[in-house]
Amino acid sequence: MSDGTLRIIPLGGLGEIGRNMLVLEYDEAILIIDAGIMFPENDMLGVDVVIPDFSYVFERADQVKAIIITHGHEDHIGALPYLLDRVQAPIYATRLTRGLIEVKLPALKEVDIHTIKAGDRLEVPPFAVEFYNVSHSIPDGVGLGITTPVGLIVHSGDFKFDHSPVNGQRTDFAKIAELGSRGVLLLLSDSTNAEKPGYTPSERYLEETLGRIFAGAQGRVIVATFASNISRIQQVIDTSERYGRRVAIVGRSMVNNFRIARQLGYVRVADELLLPLNQLRDVPDREVTLICTGSQGEPTSALVRMGERGYHSVNVKAGDTIIVSANPIPGNEEYVNRTLDNLFRLGADVYYDEILDVHVSGHASQEEQKLLISMLRPRYFVPIHGEYRHLVWHSKLARECGIPQENIFVIETGDVLEIDQEGARVAGRVADHLVLVDGHGPKAVAHNVLEERTNLARSGFLVVVVLADKYTNALVGEPQIVTRGFLYEGEEVALEARLREEIEETLSRGGTRADLTKRLQASLERAAYAETGRRPIVVPVVIKV
Amino acid sequence: MSDGTLRIIPLGGLGEIGRNMLVLEYDEAILIIDAGIMFPENDMLGVDVVIPDFSYVFERADQVKAIIITHGHEDHIGALPYLLDRVQAPIYATRLTRGLIEVKLPALKEVDIHTIKAGDRLEVPPFAVEFYNVSHSIPDGVGLGITTPVGLIVHSGDFKFDHSPVNGQRTDFAKIAELGSRGVLLLLSDSTNAEKPGYTPSERYLEETLGRIFAGAQGRVIVATFASNISRIQQVIDTSERYGRRVAIVGRSMVNNFRIARQLGYVRVADELLLPLNQLRDVPDREVTLICTGSQGEPTSALVRMGERGYHSVNVKAGDTIIVSANPIPGNEEYVNRTLDNLFRLGADVYYDEILDVHVSGHASQEEQKLLISMLRPRYFVPIHGEYRHLVWHSKLARECGIPQENIFVIETGDVLEIDQEGARVAGRVADHLVLVDGHGPKAVAHNVLEERTNLARSGFLVVVVLADKYTNALVGEPQIVTRGFLYEGEEVALEARLREEIEETLSRGGTRADLTKRLQASLERAAYAETGRRPIVVPVVIKV
Repeated sequence: MSDGTLRIIPLGGLGEIGRNMLVLEYDEAILIIDAGIMFPENDMLGVDVVIPDFSYVFERADQVKAIIITHGHEDHIGALPYLLDRVQAPIYATRLTRGLIEVKLPALKEVDIHTIKAGDRLEVPPFAVEFYNVSHSIPDGVGLGITTPVGLIVHSGDFKFDHSPVNGQRTDFAKIAELGSRGVLLLLSDSTNAEKPGYTPSERYLEETLGRIFAGAQGRVIVATFASNISRIQQVIDTSERYGRRVAIVGRSMVNNFRIARQLGYVRVADELLLPLNQLRDVPDREVTLICTGSQGEPTSALVRMGERGYHSVNVKAGDTIIVSANPIPGNEEYVNRTLDNLFRLGADVYYDEILDVHVSGHASQEEQKLLISMLRPRYFVPIHGEYRHLVWHSKLARECGIPQENIFVIETGDVLEIDQEGARVAGRVADHLVLVDGHGPKAVAHNVLEERTNLARSGFLVVVVLADKYTNALVGEPQIVTRGFLYEGEEVALEARLREEIEETLSRGGTRADLTKRLQASLERAAYAETGRRPIVVPVVIKV
Repeated sequence: MSDGTLRIIPLGGLGEIGRNMLVLEYDEAILIIDAGIMFPENDMLGVDVVIPDFSYVFERADQVKAIIITHGHEDHIGALPYLLDRVQAPIYATRLTRGLIEVKLPALKEVDIHTIKAGDRLEVPPFAVEFYNVSHSIPDGVGLGITTPVGLIVHSGDFKFDHSPVNGQRTDFAKIAELGSRGVLLLLSDSTNAEKPGYTPSERYLEETLGRIFAGAQGRVIVATFASNISRIQQVIDTSERYGRRVAIVGRSMVNNFRIARQLGYVRVADELLLPLNQLRDVPDREVTLICTGSQGEPTSALVRMGERGYHSVNVKAGDTIIVSANPIPGNEEYVNRTLDNLFRLGADVYYDEILDVHVSGHASQEEQKLLISMLRPRYFVPIHGEYRHLVWHSKLARECGIPQENIFVIETGDVLEIDQEGARVAGRVADHLVLVDGHGPKAVAHNVLEERTNLARSGFLVVVVLADKYTNALVGEPQIVTRGFLYEGEEVALEARLREEIEETLSRGGTRADLTKRLQASLERAAYAETGRRPIVVPVVIKV
């Protein structure tokens, strides 16, 4: 492919939230940026996570020169194990990002992983990658300046412009300006908050609110947030110290992330401020803060179990003050509301986004997105990281900033953007199936499996086993009827009688096993619906004996 | 029960959103207020709707003197058919409410239903009910002043204080003040928006926004809203007339509601302004408005089908301007977002709540809730219509308004509040199961059915039919393996071999049919998990031949 063409291929994260992954390809050299997971939508029943379709890179595995990770969130690192199954290439990540990759994905320990830092320049011919600091809801995130044979590309990473970040890491204006001064061919920029006007408030904005809540709290303070939100955790620790409270960490992923972040110096906390869970009873409630998972109402998370009195020593009680410091991710609203209601029922004071600003986003709003575009003044613009409407809004902002319509490409996962001396164009698509992880290992999406689960979820199943005499077709013994998720109390008797009639009627008309099965299928489905008004999955099993 | 005690028993809508129903009982006389449905939560798989547990009134059916309906929304009228199954009592409703009951529930035509209007006084000894106008997102809603032997009770209905309503129906301040001047024993008031500070804007507030969007629209304008939001429909019709557009109505429930509301004079529109769908092609796009269902992204609704190009003549196309004039109900966000993305993909301009105020709520916000409390100055206060946290916030407002803590009762569906000369108290609970409608007729909630569906939704099922020789226990023929929603492509062969081994091993150890079934259950479950990492519902069927 020595055709002087750069190919930019998003394998995830464009037209969807999550499984972020981008491929840059030039002259048989491939650079991969991020490899994340996506959480399944509510109607993808039984699916654990969704990952990118790696077919394109698996077919060119030996051309992959490097995998660059912008930051340590699951939607950027979570699919690495599946990618590394068949791609042997060095990974480059900052210290904390590397730590999170290693703690979350211990199986990767054998992998060729390198620590980079902002300011570094990494040569991956024909590419060179420069890293610069960005503010985000996790420390140690980077944006990328990528020199390619056709020009300079900037990848924003996940970013906001936080002028007073809790962890001290600002988005590096100077480096962005410097990249801009070199002339940028293409900007790929984070679209998550493209619907939000104005600026995203600084993480520091929460300081006053948290202080006010802590000052008024008579009992324990319990703060639920994302386990990866290291800055938020730091802020709660700092506030606790100010108000004379010791801090306990609750929830497996919170404990893991906290440990690695502290070990690497990204969380600063004195030993004596930390409170082991088993010493909780020895400390007065008003000297205790708990930081826990469960901000999304996840059924097995710490906050939910504490609210359902299923967490031994740390159950929620009257007098507790609870802060849910996160927004519900779309699809989780019902879980979050249910959790809030349970906490109120237990008599806790509960603060959450609906009634008080106890969370700020980690992503740039419209004015910040425009600022980045204006500083870089790229020739071409591609909005990344967002559902389709976010990409559309971001593209409108780019137009407002003076980028001509024809130089803006609203593309989706799987689209191929080519850039060469002639210009840029969308040139076809690569394989872009949703790949599911459901039990052991990844599967190509199987619509039949998901469709069957949808039908089972609605009305369960009815399996009828019929033994028929191989000479006379007479029914041998009683038919065996197996149902699950189908019948309510009191419906069995009438249904069984009806099914029995249908079976005898069908057998009496004779036929091969296949004939009988087919006719039984139809007559049992009809009977089940007539008796119950529901349509279970019906499977007749006919055995001739 | 001639004990001088009034019993107030909510059978739905307290601690949950929907299935609103309240029972007032005194001296063997029962008054029912509303009988609505609730939409199932996302994890109530396969359930159509949830209705109140009627056990308490069914056991006292002959004591029910009247059923009063406050307005025509599904969460206030939808459960009537199930209630009337076993309760013969006259229904009282305003004209539009009656019309909607009759159009939505045609089977009720035979029922004893009476039209009342604001200002009427209805004697239902020992009660007397006075009706007063309230503003809400549907016309003809009423609040109730109920004189009882122990004192005057006010039921707010669903209300807001809209000083410039589109349909001209204001909440009747004068009547509320008059009720207040008589001395109110108990106020039962709508808590839906108790988390929202300030005032809910007037419906009229949308006029300017709609006008601006219509003025800029080059092609068709498509407005999706709730079929019951008659005022919104009127406003879109008025705006269309002003901008020279004719109006087509799309979607079954929208067409039904529009027809009955127009017939009864609650929607005003000239014949020539209406555009039959089959004439759509004859009118230039910029002279057309479509009003349709689908504001919640419901998969079978008009807007969704139009956005998936499944609606013949009225598919969405580039140049269309679409207004989604409703907020997503919690649990529907994913559907709504998916619908918005599809509309953007088709090149439409889309306006929705996230980016522009194109919807106002029909419920009172905190300042209006406080205003009602202050005008009525009730001795006792019970927040109704809301999830638990809404009830808690509303109770805080009541305290701010000077009602003593001990006179405020945060009760939930099924709780019994008693009031007599001595005062008010919570006195036990009545049956309060979630009653599901799933196929033919209502069922008491069956946790096993829902649990089985949850498991089936996650990993499907595996039924194995084994014929064993009744003397030797030797396997007869091949085991029949039936799976649905369980296996992905390529997994069958290895699994079948493994299952076959397990079956032979189990049979070789002999035993009764029950023994074999039990041991097979365990060994097949283990094998299925070992092979796939998933846990389907496993059912072995052993037949001795």
